[in-house]
Amino acid sequence: MKEIIDALIKFRNERDWEQFHNPKDLAVALNVEAGELLELFLWKEAEEADKEKVKEELADVFSFAFLLAEKYGLDVKEIVLDKIEKNGLKYTVEKSKGTAKKYTEL
Amino acid sequence: MKEIIDALIKFRNERDWEQFHNPKDLAVALNVEAGELLELFLWKEAEEADKEKVKEELADVFSFAFLLAEKYGLDVKEIVLDKIEKNGLKYTVEKSKGTAKKYTEL
Amino acid sequence: MKEIIDALIKFRNERDWEQFHNPKDLAVALNVEAGELLELFLWKEAEEADKEKVKEELADVFSFAFLLAEKYGLDVKEIVLDKIEKNGLKYTVEKSKGTAKKYTEL
Amino acid sequence: MKEIIDALIKFRNERDWEQFHNPKDLAVALNVEAGELLELFLWKEAEEADKEKVKEELADVFSFAFLLAEKYGLDVKEIVLDKIEKNGLKYTVEKSKGTAKKYTEL
Repeated sequence: MKEIIDALIKFRNERDWEQFHNPKDLAVALNVEAGELLELFLWKEAEEADKEKVKEELADVFSFAFLLAEKYGLDVKEIVLDKIEKNGLKYTVEKSKGTAKKYTEL
Repeated sequence: MKEIIDALIKFRNERDWEQFHNPKDLAVALNVEAGELLELFLWKEAEEADKEKVKEELADVFSFAFLLAEKYGLDVKEIVLDKIEKNGLKYTVEKSKGTAKKYTEL
Repeated sequence: MKEIIDALIKFRNERDWEQFHNPKDLAVALNVEAGELLELFLWKEAEEADKEKVKEELADVFSFAFLLAEKYGLDVKEIVLDKIEKNGLKYTVEKSKGTAKKYTEL
Repeated sequence: MKEIIDALIKFRNERDWEQFHNPKDLAVALNVEAGELLELFLWKEAEEADKEKVKEELADVFSFAFLLAEKYGLDVKEIVLDKIEKNGLKYTVEKSKGTAKKYTEL
């Protein structure tokens, strides 16, 4: 992942874009890209989305997610594994197996 | 990243949640989480968001992004580096240095 | 508002699009359009967005919001006034005056 | 609609919230609420969402959409009818009848 983040930072710095990349706008950009990804599924069954386009929009989502992580000095592996552990307490196997209910309704 | 994806898949399979994880709902989930992340910046200056909460919401965003990548058999490093290359053609250093304009307006 | 909804329904029916307009896809469409509206503010100060484009994207947001309301047989005036009343209990003037804090933190 | 907007403005002014309601944060708020509405459909068939909750989240979406319209001095009926007319040119009945394709692919 270090390699990805380094490439993103290099791209950003070559264009002198750090001045625009405050965390709020990065979160806005992430939402914009998540919306573009979602559009690929609009009015469609799950299988019908164009895989080539999914690849590109998902890459954009990851880019802003990595830039946000970098901005806060967060280690992606650590925060995801921590969250999985935390979610394991909210969604115990016993209560949540086979159901998509939110933990507030379990 | 393999380790992260393996942990996410294990969590999902223990709960028998693969049945819900079609790509369209994963894209919906990603948008929901991106919205929760964005809420942390609402009515605030960029610096005022709660870092602990950002950590958790960003972890959720990454989780669904990784699950989508896995669903399509995509290699995250490859798709991000490919996209950076592609973006380099739309946003050449010459035209885009120091400006946040969209490529359609450069 | 009846006039707006009638025009939207006429447009939809002339194109035989009711078959695609289930509530879930309408909610997806609303998010996609909200993302396009948000993009107009990306990397910018609040005043810098292009008003002509805001007008168009906001119109799209309203269109899908009205179509969703119609789908559920909801009266827009009634649901907004009800929600204002409800919010008045969560955000009493006393506690929330001059602060942007969420009610859970007041 | 004047009545709705007046009620929203009154609610806002009583709490001295106009200071937070710049167009960018209103667009952010609209996205956050659109995400909460979307969550009601997550992992579900279109018919399974809770109508009472849809009502509330849709009311929130409308509230921020109306506040944005008001901020820009836009007439909601006018902008939606204008957009319908514009969309009629992109999506002619002839080309778009019975298909959910985007105009760029028609």
